[in-house]
Amino acid sequence: MSVEMNYSDYLQLKKILGAQSLETEKLSRPAHDEMLFIIIHQTYELWFKQLLYEVESAIAIMKLPSLNDNSPELQTVVHRLSRCTTILKILVHQIDVMETMTPMDFLDFRDLLRPASGFQSWQFKELEARLGLKYSQRHGQEYYISKLRPDQVDIVRKAEQDQSLLELVNLWLERMPFFEESAQWKNFELSGAGLNPSPNSDAHPFWVEYLHRYGNSLASEEKNNLESFRVLISFAEGAGSKEDLGFQRQLSAKACRAAIFIMLYRGYPILQLPFQLLTQLLEIDEQLSTWRYRHMSMVHRMIGSRIGTGGSSGKDYLKGALDKHYIFRELALLTSFLIERRKLPALSREMERRLGFAV
Amino acid sequence: MSVEMNYSDYLQLKKILGAQSLETEKLSRPAHDEMLFIIIHQTYELWFKQLLYEVESAIAIMKLPSLNDNSPELQTVVHRLSRCTTILKILVHQIDVMETMTPMDFLDFRDLLRPASGFQSWQFKELEARLGLKYSQRHGQEYYISKLRPDQVDIVRKAEQDQSLLELVNLWLERMPFFEESAQWKNFELSGAGLNPSPNSDAHPFWVEYLHRYGNSLASEEKNNLESFRVLISFAEGAGSKEDLGFQRQLSAKACRAAIFIMLYRGYPILQLPFQLLTQLLEIDEQLSTWRYRHMSMVHRMIGSRIGTGGSSGKDYLKGALDKHYIFRELALLTSFLIERRKLPALSREMERRLGFAV
Amino acid sequence: MSVEMNYSDYLQLKKILGAQSLETEKLSRPAHDEMLFIIIHQTYELWFKQLLYEVESAIAIMKLPSLNDNSPELQTVVHRLSRCTTILKILVHQIDVMETMTPMDFLDFRDLLRPASGFQSWQFKELEARLGLKYSQRHGQEYYISKLRPDQVDIVRKAEQDQSLLELVNLWLERMPFFEESAQWKNFELSGAGLNPSPNSDAHPFWVEYLHRYGNSLASEEKNNLESFRVLISFAEGAGSKEDLGFQRQLSAKACRAAIFIMLYRGYPILQLPFQLLTQLLEIDEQLSTWRYRHMSMVHRMIGSRIGTGGSSGKDYLKGALDKHYIFRELALLTSFLIERRKLPALSREMERRLGFAV
Amino acid sequence: MSVEMNYSDYLQLKKILGAQSLETEKLSRPAHDEMLFIIIHQTYELWFKQLLYEVESAIAIMKLPSLNDNSPELQTVVHRLSRCTTILKILVHQIDVMETMTPMDFLDFRDLLRPASGFQSWQFKELEARLGLKYSQRHGQEYYISKLRPDQVDIVRKAEQDQSLLELVNLWLERMPFFEESAQWKNFELSGAGLNPSPNSDAHPFWVEYLHRYGNSLASEEKNNLESFRVLISFAEGAGSKEDLGFQRQLSAKACRAAIFIMLYRGYPILQLPFQLLTQLLEIDEQLSTWRYRHMSMVHRMIGSRIGTGGSSGKDYLKGALDKHYIFRELALLTSFLIERRKLPALSREMERRLGFAV
Repeated sequence: MSVEMNYSDYLQLKKILGAQSLETEKLSRPAHDEMLFIIIHQTYELWFKQLLYEVESAIAIMKLPSLNDNSPELQTVVHRLSRCTTILKILVHQIDVMETMTPMDFLDFRDLLRPASGFQSWQFKELEARLGLKYSQRHGQEYYISKLRPDQVDIVRKAEQDQSLLELVNLWLERMPFFEESAQWKNFELSGAGLNPSPNSDAHPFWVEYLHRYGNSLASEEKNNLESFRVLISFAEGAGSKEDLGFQRQLSAKACRAAIFIMLYRGYPILQLPFQLLTQLLEIDEQLSTWRYRHMSMVHRMIGSRIGTGGSSGKDYLKGALDKHYIFRELALLTSFLIERRKLPALSREMERRLGFAV
Repeated sequence: MSVEMNYSDYLQLKKILGAQSLETEKLSRPAHDEMLFIIIHQTYELWFKQLLYEVESAIAIMKLPSLNDNSPELQTVVHRLSRCTTILKILVHQIDVMETMTPMDFLDFRDLLRPASGFQSWQFKELEARLGLKYSQRHGQEYYISKLRPDQVDIVRKAEQDQSLLELVNLWLERMPFFEESAQWKNFELSGAGLNPSPNSDAHPFWVEYLHRYGNSLASEEKNNLESFRVLISFAEGAGSKEDLGFQRQLSAKACRAAIFIMLYRGYPILQLPFQLLTQLLEIDEQLSTWRYRHMSMVHRMIGSRIGTGGSSGKDYLKGALDKHYIFRELALLTSFLIERRKLPALSREMERRLGFAV
Repeated sequence: MSVEMNYSDYLQLKKILGAQSLETEKLSRPAHDEMLFIIIHQTYELWFKQLLYEVESAIAIMKLPSLNDNSPELQTVVHRLSRCTTILKILVHQIDVMETMTPMDFLDFRDLLRPASGFQSWQFKELEARLGLKYSQRHGQEYYISKLRPDQVDIVRKAEQDQSLLELVNLWLERMPFFEESAQWKNFELSGAGLNPSPNSDAHPFWVEYLHRYGNSLASEEKNNLESFRVLISFAEGAGSKEDLGFQRQLSAKACRAAIFIMLYRGYPILQLPFQLLTQLLEIDEQLSTWRYRHMSMVHRMIGSRIGTGGSSGKDYLKGALDKHYIFRELALLTSFLIERRKLPALSREMERRLGFAV
Repeated sequence: MSVEMNYSDYLQLKKILGAQSLETEKLSRPAHDEMLFIIIHQTYELWFKQLLYEVESAIAIMKLPSLNDNSPELQTVVHRLSRCTTILKILVHQIDVMETMTPMDFLDFRDLLRPASGFQSWQFKELEARLGLKYSQRHGQEYYISKLRPDQVDIVRKAEQDQSLLELVNLWLERMPFFEESAQWKNFELSGAGLNPSPNSDAHPFWVEYLHRYGNSLASEEKNNLESFRVLISFAEGAGSKEDLGFQRQLSAKACRAAIFIMLYRGYPILQLPFQLLTQLLEIDEQLSTWRYRHMSMVHRMIGSRIGTGGSSGKDYLKGALDKHYIFRELALLTSFLIERRKLPALSREMERRLGFAV
C-alpha cells in the first residue's frame, strides 16, 4: 500500500458504500426497510465470496497428487474449513436481523423486486456444487437454470463438473495405505477361530473381526444395520450399488472403510487431523442445513403462503432443498457403524508405531 | 433470608451439586462424558421449569375475565413471553455443548441408559400442552403415554385439558370490541358504490372493503388465496370448518379478524402491545422449532440410524414432531392475508380516537 | 425494477464482489488471509452504514416539534433502535470470524497495510457522534483528526454539531407534561404531615415524597446516594453542575425526573413505549461496549504489545475508548435511584386516567 | 441403570426440580422474578461443576510424568479444554436471560437476599485457582476469605496450593526436548558470520538467529520490544525476574522459548496439538474475561451505584477482578514476539524429520 493509501481506499469503500440504490426512492414511494434488505443481502454475498475462497483453497490443496503428512497441508485444510463453519454461524445469526423486518414492512416494497429473488444467488449454488452437490441431487433443477443468467449458469455448471471437495475427500480416503501394508497386520489377532471370513472371502481380517464385533453390539431391533454395513463397505466388485443402498453413493466402499477406521482410532497421532477434517465436513453440513431451516421459517413468517418474488412457491421450494441438499450425508451415516471404544479390536504393535510419531 | 443464610443455602447447592451419580462409576466402567450428559440434561430441565413458570403466569393473567388495558397486565404477559424466547435461544445454543460429545464418547455409556430417554421429559410435553398443543396433534401419541410414568402422564393430560395459552389468546382476540362499536364505523368509507357486501351479506363494511383490496393485491398465481381468506374469516355460521380449511382450526373466524386488524393497524397505541403479544407467540414457535431441528440433527450425528435409548427410531420420531408441533401455525398463516400499508383502508376519525390515548 | 432486472443488478453485485483487491497479490507475496481481512471489514462498514441509516431515521422522528402519542412515531423509533441492537450483536459475533486469523497469518500481510487502520473508519465515529458522543468526551481527540481525511473529519464534525439522539431524547423527556398538570396532582397524598418540602421549597410534591421514600430505602453504606440524587434532579436554578456531579451532565434535571418517572410507572399505557425507548438506548450502549471490549481483546491476541498498523499503541487506545465512550451513561446511572414497586407513591385517580387509554 | 430406572431418576429430577424455595413466597411478598434469579444461578453452578470436572481431568493428564506423544492424551486435553470454551460461551449468553429482569423487578426481592451474593460462588473461585490464578494475584483477597464459609475457603485454598493447569503447562513446555537434541541443529545455518551470540554467550544458535531476525522486523517505535524479548527468554541464570519484566512471571524463560517455537512452527505434525493446546488456553481466558465484562455491565445496569447484596461496591469489585484475573496473560504476551512466516529461520532436514511422522 502506497504511503498515501488509507483504510477507505484499501477497502474500496466508495464502491461498497455507494452500491445501495433504492427502487422505492426512484419511484418516490419511500419504504424505510429496503435499505436493510439490500445491505443484508450484500453482506450475505460478501460472505459467500469468502466461503468460496476458503473452499476453493481447500480444494486446491486436496488436489495435490498426495498430501504430505509431514507438511502443514492437511492442517491448513482443516483450519480453513473450520473458518467456513464460523462464517456460516454468522449467516445463521443474520436471520435475526432480517426478522426485524415485519411482513408489513416488507410488503411496502416487495412487489418492486419481482422477478428478482434470492434464488438467483449463483454464488450460493456454486458453493453447494464446490462442496459436492451434484446437479442430479438438486431440488428444482430446471428451475435454477431458467432463473439464472447464462453466464451464471455456466459458473454453477463448471463447479458441478470440476472435482468437488467431496470427491477429493473420497480419493484421499481411498489413498489411505493402512490396510494394504501387510506387515502391520501380520500380528493382528482374530477373536475366534470360528470367524468365517466369507461372504467376503477376500476381506481384510480387520473387517472380518470388526463386522463380527459390530454385529454383537446391535440391539435386536437394529440387526438389519449389519447387512447395510456389509453392503456399504463390501469388498466385492460392483457391490454397494444404488439398488443395494437406496441412494446414489458418493463415497466408495474403500473410502468408507478408511473413514470408519479414522473415526474408531482417531486417538493415534496420524489420524488426528484426518478425524478433524471429517468432523469439519459434518459441521459445515449442519450449519448449512440450519441456515436453510431458519431461512425457510423466516420466509414463511414473512410471506406466508404467498408466492416468492422469484415466482417460487416460497416455503415449498426451500423445504425441498432443505431435505435434499445434505452434502456429506454419507459421512454422517457412518456414525451408525461405530462400536464402543473398549470393544475395539486391538491393533498390533507394528500398526501402533505406524500411526505415531518418529521417536 | 436469615442473617446466617448464604448463597449456597439459598440456592440449595448441596442438592443441586449432589445430584450427579454416574452409572459408569457404579460399574467401574469410567466414561468421562457421562457427567456432561447428566449436567446438560439437568440444566435443560431447570430451564423447562422456568419456561413453565413464565407460561403459567402468562396464562393466569390471560384468564382474568377482562384484561384491563389501563393496567400493566398485557405488558407483563408480553415481557414474560419475550423472556421465554430468550431462554429458548439458550436451549438452542446448548446443543453446541452437547455436540462436543463425539459419537464414540457417547457409545461409552449409551447402553447403560436404556430405557431412559429424553423422550421422558414430561416437563417439555407439559410446556407444549400449556402453550396449546393438543393430544390429537401430537406425533406418536400412544408412544408418549407408554413411556411416561402414570403421574407424569397425568401432568401432561391435565395440561392438555386446561385452557392453553393459545385458547386464551383466541378468547382475548374474540373479545376485541372494535368491530361491534358502530359509532366508530359510521364514517368509514367504502371505496366504491359497486362493492357488493355479499356473499357475506351481514359482513362488516371493513371486511367487505378489505377483501376487495386484498383481492386486488394478489398476483395471478395467488388468486386462490382470496377464497381461503374468505373462508378463514367468514361471518357465516359454521363456515371455516376443517373440511373447508384442510386443518383443524384453533382460532375462530372472529379471532382471526381481530388478529389481522392488529397486524394491519399496529401503529395505533392501543394495538401496539397486542401486536407485540402476537409477535412473541410466533417467536416462541420459531425458537421451539429451531430447537427441535437442531436437536434432530444432533441425534442424527450422534447415533445415525441406530435406535435411541428410549427405543424410538431416533431421528424419525423427532422429524415427525418437528413437522407437526407448530403451535401457533394459524397466526403465522395470517401473514398471507396482509396488504401494503399505503393501500390500507383509512379509519374514521372516531376510530382513530378510539385507538389512542386520552388527551 | 424493470422486467429484465435481477438479483445481481439490484444488489450491484458487480461492484460489491469486485471490490477486493489484495495487496499481497499485487506484490506476488500471497497471503491467504488478506481476503478475509478485506471482506470482514467491508461487511463491518456495510453494517455501519445501516446503523447510521436507522439512527438518522430515529433522529428525524425525534426532531418533530412534538411526537404525536397517537401516531406510530415513537413505536417506529423503538423498533429501529431495537434493530440497531440486533445488528450490533452481529458485529460482536463477527469477532469470532476475525479470530480465526492467527497472529502468524496476520503477520503475513500486516506491514503492507500501514498506515491504514480500522481507526480510520469515519462511519463508526459518525455513528458515535450521532448517538451523542461529544468531541470533548473522546479519547485521543487530536489523534482522530490527524488520521482522517479532511472530508471525513468534516463528516464527523458535522455529526458532532448536529443535534444528537441523546440531545433529542433529553428534549423529549423535558417536554413530558405530567408534573405541570396540576389537576392530576391535587389529590396526591404526602405520606406524612411532617414532610418538609425544603430544601427545594418549590419542589413538586411527588419529588418531596419520593426523595423521602428513597432515603428510607437506602442501606446505611448507601446514604450518600440521597444527596447525589437530590443534586441530580434538583429544582434549584443552576444546581447539578459539573462540580456537583463529578461529570459533565447531558441530561437536565428535568429530563432526569421524567426518565425516573417513566422507569417507576412504566406499567401505565402511555409510559410503556417511553420505557422501551430508554431500555433500547441502554441496550445499544451495552452492545457497543461489548464490541469495544471484544475488539480490544482480539487486537491484544493478534498483535500483543506491538504497534497497530495505524501507529496507535493498539490495545491502549482501545482501552481508553472503552472506558470513556459510554454514551447513555447518565440513563444507566438513574437505576441507582429506583425504589421497590410496593413502596411507590400511589398516583391519584386523575393521574391514572391521564396515563391510560381513552375508554 | 436397572430396568425400572428412567430419565427422571437417572437425572435425579426430584432433587433438581425441588430445589427452588422462594424467600418472597415464605414472606407472602410475591416477586415473580425470584424464580428466575434462583434457577439461572443454579444453572451457572451446574456449569461451574462441569467446567471443574473438565479442567481437573485435563490436569490429571498433564500430571503424568511424561505425555506419550503417541497416545491420545494431548488430544484429550485439547478436546476437553475446547469443551470448556464452548460452555463458557453459554455462560456469557445466559447474561441475556438475566437482563430480562429489569432493575425494578430485581428490587422486589433484592433486600431479602442480603448478605448472600454471587461473590460466594466458591466453585468459580476454585475454577480460577485450578486454571492458575494465585491468591497473590486476586483482587480483593481478604474480602473473599471473609465472605466464604471455612469449608469453602479450604476448597479454594487447596486449589491454590495444588499444581494448577498453568503450572503444569509450564512444566510440559519445559520438557520439550527440541533444543537439547544437538543432532538436529548441527546443520542449522546462521544467516551471517557476524552474528554475535553474546550477550547470551551460551545461547542456542536458533535463538541467536531468531533474535536477530525479530529485531529487524520491528518498526522503529517498537524497538524496545527486542530488549523485553531478550529478558523474557534469557538463558542467563536468574534473569527475567519480576523487576526486569514488571510482573511476576509464571512461565519460565525455557517454557517461553518452547511456546514461541510451537507458535512459529505449528505446521509440523508434532507441534500441531501443542499449538491447539496453547490456543485453547487463550480462548478460555478470552471467554472468562468476556463473561466478567458482561457480568459487570449487567450489574451496573441492574443496581447502578448501589451496594451489592454481598456488601461489595458492586461494579468496582467486578472491575478490579476483570483487570487482574487474566490467567494466561503471559501466553498472550508471546504474540508480540512472532515474525513473518517467510522470514522464519529454516530448520534442518534432521529437525524436520524429528517433527514429523514415522514413514
